[in-house]
Amino acid sequence: MKIDTTLYLVTDSGNMTEETFLNKIESACEGGITLLQLREKERSAREYLSLARKVKKIVRRYNIPLLIDDRIDIALAADADGVHVGQSDIPVADARKILGPGKIIGATAKTAKQAVEAFQQGADYIGAGAVYPTGTKKDTWQISPSDIRAIVQAVPIPVNAIGGLNRNNLEILSDTGIAGICVVSALMQAPQPMLEAWALRAAFFRLKGRSPMV
Amino acid sequence: MKIDTTLYLVTDSGNMTEETFLNKIESACEGGITLLQLREKERSAREYLSLARKVKKIVRRYNIPLLIDDRIDIALAADADGVHVGQSDIPVADARKILGPGKIIGATAKTAKQAVEAFQQGADYIGAGAVYPTGTKKDTWQISPSDIRAIVQAVPIPVNAIGGLNRNNLEILSDTGIAGICVVSALMQAPQPMLEAWALRAAFFRLKGRSPMV
Repeated sequence: MKIDTTLYLVTDSGNMTEETFLNKIESACEGGITLLQLREKERSAREYLSLARKVKKIVRRYNIPLLIDDRIDIALAADADGVHVGQSDIPVADARKILGPGKIIGATAKTAKQAVEAFQQGADYIGAGAVYPTGTKKDTWQISPSDIRAIVQAVPIPVNAIGGLNRNNLEILSDTGIAGICVVSALMQAPQPMLEAWALRAAFFRLKGRSPMV
Repeated sequence: MKIDTTLYLVTDSGNMTEETFLNKIESACEGGITLLQLREKERSAREYLSLARKVKKIVRRYNIPLLIDDRIDIALAADADGVHVGQSDIPVADARKILGPGKIIGATAKTAKQAVEAFQQGADYIGAGAVYPTGTKKDTWQISPSDIRAIVQAVPIPVNAIGGLNRNNLEILSDTGIAGICVVSALMQAPQPMLEAWALRAAFFRLKGRSPMV
């Protein structure tokens, strides 16, 4: 499935009220995110599903696909557009079997080997990181820009960088060939996610040497 | 789907090695459990799935259905016989939609109202408890034998009691009309689960006023 991973928001509702959380998401949609992953590992399945349905109502108005982190059953119950699975989640091959060909499946990879495996099992894109240390995910470790470049060169699907990215620190990714960036805090913690999304898009397109206006 | 809930083992691998865990399960199968629920909330989805596949190989030799706690996606990936969902898991109606009519769905209920709701949404049986305080599940509270009796009378599907049950403390359930008992520690912590399962069956049939040999 063809997807635009240019500016990919991974959520973190943290200590926000639900209202604040949904408002931030709507604002980020207005600012031009192209993909959204709901990642709510701390919630019960019932709360996760309830939130997924609310987020879906927002993102569908902007034609932005909704992916669910880890829980394929919640993606099915909410009729989301797909899932994102990490190396300790259900393997991509099993996810593809459960979801069928019409849904998006993204996978985390830290090495070219993991990326190739995910691609061969049916992944539509790769998230590679962490580029920088990040407070929103504890069980992760950093990889270098050249690791990311190796992943990009190993697979024919879009590869996004993730991990502590913001509009001021993308420069080290300039030669990696990434298709887009995943951000969590840069948007979720921004007072005005719409403006921040716009700035992130601009920073990414500058990195790629083309204008966001074209 | 018609199921025998007489002696229903809910697993808790705790600090056991995988080998010990699988041996205990096999021993319990030999002793006459009639249903098994794999409940491994602390594990990653990948580990949960891997363990589900191993347990399935054992229980299928004894014709014992395998249910997965909470994770419908893992039940699908492992081709288990169904799921068990609590009040904070995916609702029964959504689970039924995802799994279709051929799979078993069990639900936890603490009141007749919850039980009726689960039945109307497509549940095949009800687990009602906790009868006694239990160390294996923290987020629960006790209900009385008369609460359980009210649940039994409210729904036409099997109702099992759960919560700290062992072969010596079933007496208070004698007038409840339960279809069976769910046990965790009584079997998982038993040195010889086979013998313990036999004793539990005997105790339950004694409670019901009939012989396990008939």
